[in-house]
Amino acid sequence: MLQKLFFKRLKRGPQVVLEKDFGAIISLTGLQSGDTVIDAGSGSGFLAIRLGSIVAPAGKVYSFEWRDDFAELARKNVEKAGLSDVIEIAKADVFAGFPKDGADLVTLDFAGSDKAVPHAFAALKSGGWCVGILPNAEQMRDFYLAGAAAGFEAVHAIDVTVKNWLIRPHGCRPETMGLNHTAFLVFLQKPAAKPIKTSDA
Amino acid sequence: MLQKLFFKRLKRGPQVVLEKDFGAIISLTGLQSGDTVIDAGSGSGFLAIRLGSIVAPAGKVYSFEWRDDFAELARKNVEKAGLSDVIEIAKADVFAGFPKDGADLVTLDFAGSDKAVPHAFAALKSGGWCVGILPNAEQMRDFYLAGAAAGFEAVHAIDVTVKNWLIRPHGCRPETMGLNHTAFLVFLQKPAAKPIKTSDA
Amino acid sequence: MLQKLFFKRLKRGPQVVLEKDFGAIISLTGLQSGDTVIDAGSGSGFLAIRLGSIVAPAGKVYSFEWRDDFAELARKNVEKAGLSDVIEIAKADVFAGFPKDGADLVTLDFAGSDKAVPHAFAALKSGGWCVGILPNAEQMRDFYLAGAAAGFEAVHAIDVTVKNWLIRPHGCRPETMGLNHTAFLVFLQKPAAKPIKTSDA
Amino acid sequence: MLQKLFFKRLKRGPQVVLEKDFGAIISLTGLQSGDTVIDAGSGSGFLAIRLGSIVAPAGKVYSFEWRDDFAELARKNVEKAGLSDVIEIAKADVFAGFPKDGADLVTLDFAGSDKAVPHAFAALKSGGWCVGILPNAEQMRDFYLAGAAAGFEAVHAIDVTVKNWLIRPHGCRPETMGLNHTAFLVFLQKPAAKPIKTSDA
Repeated sequence: MLQKLFFKRLKRGPQVVLEKDFGAIISLTGLQSGDTVIDAGSGSGFLAIRLGSIVAPAGKVYSFEWRDDFAELARKNVEKAGLSDVIEIAKADVFAGFPKDGADLVTLDFAGSDKAVPHAFAALKSGGWCVGILPNAEQMRDFYLAGAAAGFEAVHAIDVTVKNWLIRPHGCRPETMGLNHTAFLVFLQKPAAKPIKTSDA
Repeated sequence: MLQKLFFKRLKRGPQVVLEKDFGAIISLTGLQSGDTVIDAGSGSGFLAIRLGSIVAPAGKVYSFEWRDDFAELARKNVEKAGLSDVIEIAKADVFAGFPKDGADLVTLDFAGSDKAVPHAFAALKSGGWCVGILPNAEQMRDFYLAGAAAGFEAVHAIDVTVKNWLIRPHGCRPETMGLNHTAFLVFLQKPAAKPIKTSDA
Repeated sequence: MLQKLFFKRLKRGPQVVLEKDFGAIISLTGLQSGDTVIDAGSGSGFLAIRLGSIVAPAGKVYSFEWRDDFAELARKNVEKAGLSDVIEIAKADVFAGFPKDGADLVTLDFAGSDKAVPHAFAALKSGGWCVGILPNAEQMRDFYLAGAAAGFEAVHAIDVTVKNWLIRPHGCRPETMGLNHTAFLVFLQKPAAKPIKTSDA
Repeated sequence: MLQKLFFKRLKRGPQVVLEKDFGAIISLTGLQSGDTVIDAGSGSGFLAIRLGSIVAPAGKVYSFEWRDDFAELARKNVEKAGLSDVIEIAKADVFAGFPKDGADLVTLDFAGSDKAVPHAFAALKSGGWCVGILPNAEQMRDFYLAGAAAGFEAVHAIDVTVKNWLIRPHGCRPETMGLNHTAFLVFLQKPAAKPIKTSDA
């Protein structure tokens, strides 16, 4: 089990996918031990490390980043997490396509990610999922529509809210202030391969 | 990757932990491949199967249930999921203690689960997590207070809301109606082992 | 129209009913110009002043408070608001019953208010509403059950959340942090008077 | 007090502003007895009637509608509500400007309402409020930006959620399903008049 303290030790440069969003990604895509993931962009490596902790030991996370400073930070964080065998941080221009394919999951977390949705489609196995992590409502809409245009099915868009409760012996209530928003999430599923129909069928 | 369709094929008798809650459990406890989980009660086996898909292939889920009909249903669902090597469904009276220990995670999803919190403490590794899944606010409060009394630290209580968005080319908005509530979740962490102080220290 | 700036000038001692909760009270009870309101306890007078601004000029708000310092503060705030003809702040032990009746609306905002629910029933017109403002979930439950026991119908319990959005030309999203909770609201409606049936009917 | 039953008797053709949104409008603008309101478009008259019940008896609601069938429906509903002295339903092309001014509040509830925001500015008193009721996030953004461009200050955008709770003696929890969304609300305040500075000041 990854210790919570570990996450506090990770150096965080760019913004990270928060736990509530990571949880929804794992849960709704059914990601599991042994799966292959493409993650773009790496940022601080936070999402790659969380994904790597799920697909390890046999699975793989290929994480692409075009900024050298972020790639360097992500690589250091992956090492600290002891997941260098599972996660590969590589430099790539994700708008030009992904250098890997056969993925069970592609996560896209960068500005303009709707432009990369057709590349995600190409890089996924049948039945695989592409997930967009998008701060603004308009980006959610564009990503969703790009997914439908690229041939994805089972397209849906959500936001996740976690409310903390204040518990005392005499009574409980939600905390007065809380986290309202990190990002919208869009889930796109590539159609499952259909059996070839023969004249005997 | 577990196919979404698979989950639709599972026979669901008792109420199941919904995906949003499962996601928060994985995410906030840091559960990963290779971990050991105690799950009580089994219900339809839904939570055990989701947990098993994360800890496989080297990890284990020990799932305890005292109703024979639920145990039977859970066992069939585990078989269908192809996880019989990872998940063991056993009959046990969880109010009397767990027949296993050394767990990274204990999940408690049954009425009166606050009474079993001290047993969860005993069955966990240092730094491990106990998670309660509780329909009512009063149950959340009682579980939380039982956790603090049993010696847990880092105690917190949440509820998770997932809002679906309706996306159309001319604009986006949340869907008119949606799921408001499944359960409250309480997270209790067992203190990490402290180094033994000797007279030389 | 009451200026927003006015509200900033009010001296606030005890906690006040926030605008989102005030809005729900007006909206769901249908309070309007000319109505009679009983308000207990006065606190800083904030709720009495808001209610007074709706029922003025012909309506009345009788606001009861047992702490002298709060009553004094409320009276000063009512004067500043120019509503001394509409709102009367009086000292009263609300657990012993209300010195007024024939109310369209009774608002109860003090610890232990469930004990005063039968007094509210007695003080209301047929079809009138009693609203409880309650910080904790357990208080909401007790107030609601006291309402059902006292003969109210159309009983319901809610919480109201207002999310602020951050709007920029390139896109919009909810603000990162926000107000999660002020109070639960319980609405109890006294049954409408039924026509007396005679043997001719 | 307006009886809840009354609202059930209103004929509802076009979509209505729901109670939670009406409550936020009253509460955040400080509307009160005696105020003047411009309401466009009338729709079924629901919002005009709720506003009329607050500003009566001395205030006025001028409600504009360009569809003859809606205007007719609204007029009938206003009569049923007994508010014909307070509310005037008139036909008008609101994109060409409002035939009234000196308003404390202008409510805009129709597609393309951002185009009418400068007309609302012209029709308002200093310190008055313009409120937009907007189904989609993109409409909220456009209305908000039109407000800032037209000279409004204190611009803010919200959505309001009301969660119903299920209360039973053994415990309470939010209802499983609920209303997620009706509309976004944008509030624009016209700057208060500033005193003219003379050379003597």
